[in-house]
Amino acid sequence: MSQDEFLAAAIEEAKLGAEEGGIPIGSVLVIDGEIIGRGHNRREQRFSAILHAEMDCLENAGRLSPAEYRRSVLYSTLSPCDMCSGAALLYKIPKIIVGENVTFQGPEEYVRGRGVELEIVNHPECIALMRDFIEHYPELWNEDIGEV
Amino acid sequence: MSQDEFLAAAIEEAKLGAEEGGIPIGSVLVIDGEIIGRGHNRREQRFSAILHAEMDCLENAGRLSPAEYRRSVLYSTLSPCDMCSGAALLYKIPKIIVGENVTFQGPEEYVRGRGVELEIVNHPECIALMRDFIEHYPELWNEDIGEV
Repeated sequence: MSQDEFLAAAIEEAKLGAEEGGIPIGSVLVIDGEIIGRGHNRREQRFSAILHAEMDCLENAGRLSPAEYRRSVLYSTLSPCDMCSGAALLYKIPKIIVGENVTFQGPEEYVRGRGVELEIVNHPECIALMRDFIEHYPELWNEDIGEV
Repeated sequence: MSQDEFLAAAIEEAKLGAEEGGIPIGSVLVIDGEIIGRGHNRREQRFSAILHAEMDCLENAGRLSPAEYRRSVLYSTLSPCDMCSGAALLYKIPKIIVGENVTFQGPEEYVRGRGVELEIVNHPECIALMRDFIEHYPELWNEDIGEV
């Protein structure tokens, strides 16, 4: 599978979240060219304060060895926030492919400074999903990113 | 309740984790002088890659408003790792009381640089819990902090 196809899988997760009435952000974790975990934001679905897409994906991937994380690539449809960036740093995930950073931007410079490769795609579908969601549910979105 | 009593509640959580066969790290979230959430590391118990003590505590506290997080204090028996520090940054938790940072140290300077007040207690009981655990289960500990 190619990078485009892995990002497409993350977008599928985001759409699944939207169908469930949740925040449309999706994520996949790839090791050795294979998707090991998939997830999407479940704030609404699980009434969760921590299940952002990347966290849900990492949890669904299961307990991996340090060596596995260190050759993994994390895909997210949206620029990872402080928490999700921190999770990637904890496990020393070396590369993150970001669907878009137009509607929200996490601590990208800090993450790069810690040695992580960040590639920003700015895929029109990722941007459209978030724009549409934020327009309709601004309060839920603000809650998700800790903003008043 | 005093700061000492809140830290004691976090230590109780850490001991509960140890009794369950887990990693002895505990956390409480305090708002307006009341414990709103409690948690402990559940890597072993839930086979979880994300339920560090602070994450478990934030999840158990439920979905709070940005205003509530902004007047909260997070207690952890151990210096928060990148992921848990990131969660505190996401929700703009202004103060973290750290039981100890002798056996492990998270990104404390970065967190301080982002405006969070960090108070390090170095409580002998917190240090002893971790020393004893790391001595007996070095591999589980390394997995928890993403180290080989």
